[in-house]
Amino acid sequence: TIRGARNAWQSLRLFSLVALVAALMGVAAWAFLTCLDAVTGFREAHLICFALLPAVGVFTAWLYRRYGKDAARGNNLVIDCTVSGRHIPPVMAPFTFVCSVATHLAGGSAGREGTAVQIGGTIADAVSRLFKLDEYDHQDLLMAGISAAFGGVFGTPLAGAFFGMEMCFVGKLQYRAGVYCLLASFVGDAVTTALGAPRESYDIGMVPQLVPSSLAFAVLAAVVFGIAARMFSGAIRVVKRFYAAHITNYVVAALVGAFVVLGTYVVFGLYDYGGLSSWLVEAGFTGTATPVDALLKLAMTALTLGAGFQGGEVTPIFGIGASLGGWLGAALGYSLGVTPAFGAALGMVGVFGSALNVPMTTILLGVDLFGGLAAPYFVIVSFVSYLVAGHRGVYPAQRIVTPKW
Amino acid sequence: TIRGARNAWQSLRLFSLVALVAALMGVAAWAFLTCLDAVTGFREAHLICFALLPAVGVFTAWLYRRYGKDAARGNNLVIDCTVSGRHIPPVMAPFTFVCSVATHLAGGSAGREGTAVQIGGTIADAVSRLFKLDEYDHQDLLMAGISAAFGGVFGTPLAGAFFGMEMCFVGKLQYRAGVYCLLASFVGDAVTTALGAPRESYDIGMVPQLVPSSLAFAVLAAVVFGIAARMFSGAIRVVKRFYAAHITNYVVAALVGAFVVLGTYVVFGLYDYGGLSSWLVEAGFTGTATPVDALLKLAMTALTLGAGFQGGEVTPIFGIGASLGGWLGAALGYSLGVTPAFGAALGMVGVFGSALNVPMTTILLGVDLFGGLAAPYFVIVSFVSYLVAGHRGVYPAQRIVTPKW
Repeated sequence: TIRGARNAWQSLRLFSLVALVAALMGVAAWAFLTCLDAVTGFREAHLICFALLPAVGVFTAWLYRRYGKDAARGNNLVIDCTVSGRHIPPVMAPFTFVCSVATHLAGGSAGREGTAVQIGGTIADAVSRLFKLDEYDHQDLLMAGISAAFGGVFGTPLAGAFFGMEMCFVGKLQYRAGVYCLLASFVGDAVTTALGAPRESYDIGMVPQLVPSSLAFAVLAAVVFGIAARMFSGAIRVVKRFYAAHITNYVVAALVGAFVVLGTYVVFGLYDYGGLSSWLVEAGFTGTATPVDALLKLAMTALTLGAGFQGGEVTPIFGIGASLGGWLGAALGYSLGVTPAFGAALGMVGVFGSALNVPMTTILLGVDLFGGLAAPYFVIVSFVSYLVAGHRGVYPAQRIVTPKW
Repeated sequence: TIRGARNAWQSLRLFSLVALVAALMGVAAWAFLTCLDAVTGFREAHLICFALLPAVGVFTAWLYRRYGKDAARGNNLVIDCTVSGRHIPPVMAPFTFVCSVATHLAGGSAGREGTAVQIGGTIADAVSRLFKLDEYDHQDLLMAGISAAFGGVFGTPLAGAFFGMEMCFVGKLQYRAGVYCLLASFVGDAVTTALGAPRESYDIGMVPQLVPSSLAFAVLAAVVFGIAARMFSGAIRVVKRFYAAHITNYVVAALVGAFVVLGTYVVFGLYDYGGLSSWLVEAGFTGTATPVDALLKLAMTALTLGAGFQGGEVTPIFGIGASLGGWLGAALGYSLGVTPAFGAALGMVGVFGSALNVPMTTILLGVDLFGGLAAPYFVIVSFVSYLVAGHRGVYPAQRIVTPKW
């Protein structure tokens, strides 16, 4: 076998390095979540923070252009370095940490997993470099770093384990890294939780019996989630391309991008759609959010991330998915026997999985967040929305190993 | 993309064909389970049935040699035909149905999934041939047929869906066939259940909290399960090779093989280890089975399947896994806070998944049978036992896509 030469000592060494990376990532995730919590609270109390958007935009653009090498490629660079064995610039972790916190302070609409994955990847890469790991160990360690990041930042150890195995590819799960990713995700989550990081929790409520009407709801909803995911990743791409094509000076581009975000907030009074917008997920679960909420969150996130602000995609996606699903549940619930909370839960996992092309992670995320009773629905929603969303998700660097159709 | 040329009409056609295959398979699974129930009841009431072993052995060998082409390769042939696009001889389905029922009537120690998968594969292949499907549709339809068979015969729709996507490979999940396998497995299960097929159910009891001691139990148990899986598939191989190497005449070989099984039963009074041995699973859950039970069931199954009797591997594996796991739970339970039922549940899925090299199916099988509360344990057991069991499972035809280490 390919790694036949590797002996037990090397495996044990890799296990220890995985645990080390995961523990470090756990601390980093705790620090990041705590900072986010602080700046979000501060911004919600001081609306003036939004005025920082242009400064943060320009600072981010300048920092990455001047010192970041290709770190601005974010998770795409992590994917490339994991698959190819190249190294991640060490500045990636501190840059994305600082700039993501700044994004949230200034009310940019963004998430957390991008930041976490880049920190996890950077830590893993630094350790890999230090111990001169070979190509295979390097890949496994980086995947484990991704798992620790996801498990730690979202408090979802099973989903985290699969995310590391799945994120770099479309249509492939890297089984080989399985035990390392599993260990990393559990350790990352345990450390982050033990340090007292703030955690959200949601209640799926009553899970409907598997009957034709509830199955029909799941399939219909999954199609909607897949389309939303497609629109989400497409919108970010369009905004990014537009600025790149029409403005040659990068400082001007960042400034224009930031002013567009700021202007949209001010003109339409959309401040609630800035930052993480955790309220949106809650509104989805009570069935009080609408597709307009989903669309506005999608637009603000595309404008923010498309303009080059740091942050992630997943938390906005949770808000979009929960609003859409909760609305579907409220609209069709009476006739199909489902609740808004159930629809919102499916929406969270469905839009997530199809936007990121990670169908197995999707299923386990559902189990992590809402327990296994609804597992059949998570499986159905995952597979159907995965197909509907097409091949191009939020990470263009993903290697298409098995085309979807 | 590879299948870019395929239009919506073709996809819809394939969906209809998948539903058709799954419905037919559901009926076949019901018929098979009903026959098994009848012959098992009859044999348990009439010990003399064991005397049929030599006749059944010789009949099976003659039938397959004379009319079966390479159908005697069983699931390995289904794997080859799925991956390569070749066709399955139509006689495979009736032959394995009749000969498997005969095996169980005569008390051979065997299971059910082999029979079901071969029937499902044959039905799917016949439909594929009739509609002249291209290479891709052929593969998807055969995988769906495998899913319908597994979902139908075990009443586990989620595990069935993944089994079709996973059975043909080591270290690969065929995502592309996902929705087809999902549909097939649910339809197969629904039809089989609606027709009133006999179903087993087991209770995992109390699921321990995820603490270091219960984690340690899961990892230790997974190592034991992986070793058991390795011994199981190795033992069948050894018996098969022994007869092939030492007896040139195939009728004599079958006769000797059958007499060895019969002799072992009679001399050691092991009649309880014949057939499905459903009692063994129950004994595992109460913690009253021992490693000796597991070893005896393993030996009888290896002697039976190695001698060329038809049937499957999974139900004996469930018995072996439940006895081992239940015994571990009883032996270590007091100190590690786990119960025999919990250990038995882990054992069922752990030995299954690592003997068949299907780690994702393993996790979903646990969720299907025991609910999602224990999902973290199923994930851990699946990954660890998968690694321990090595590359050669009970299906040597599996394509090794990603080596385990």
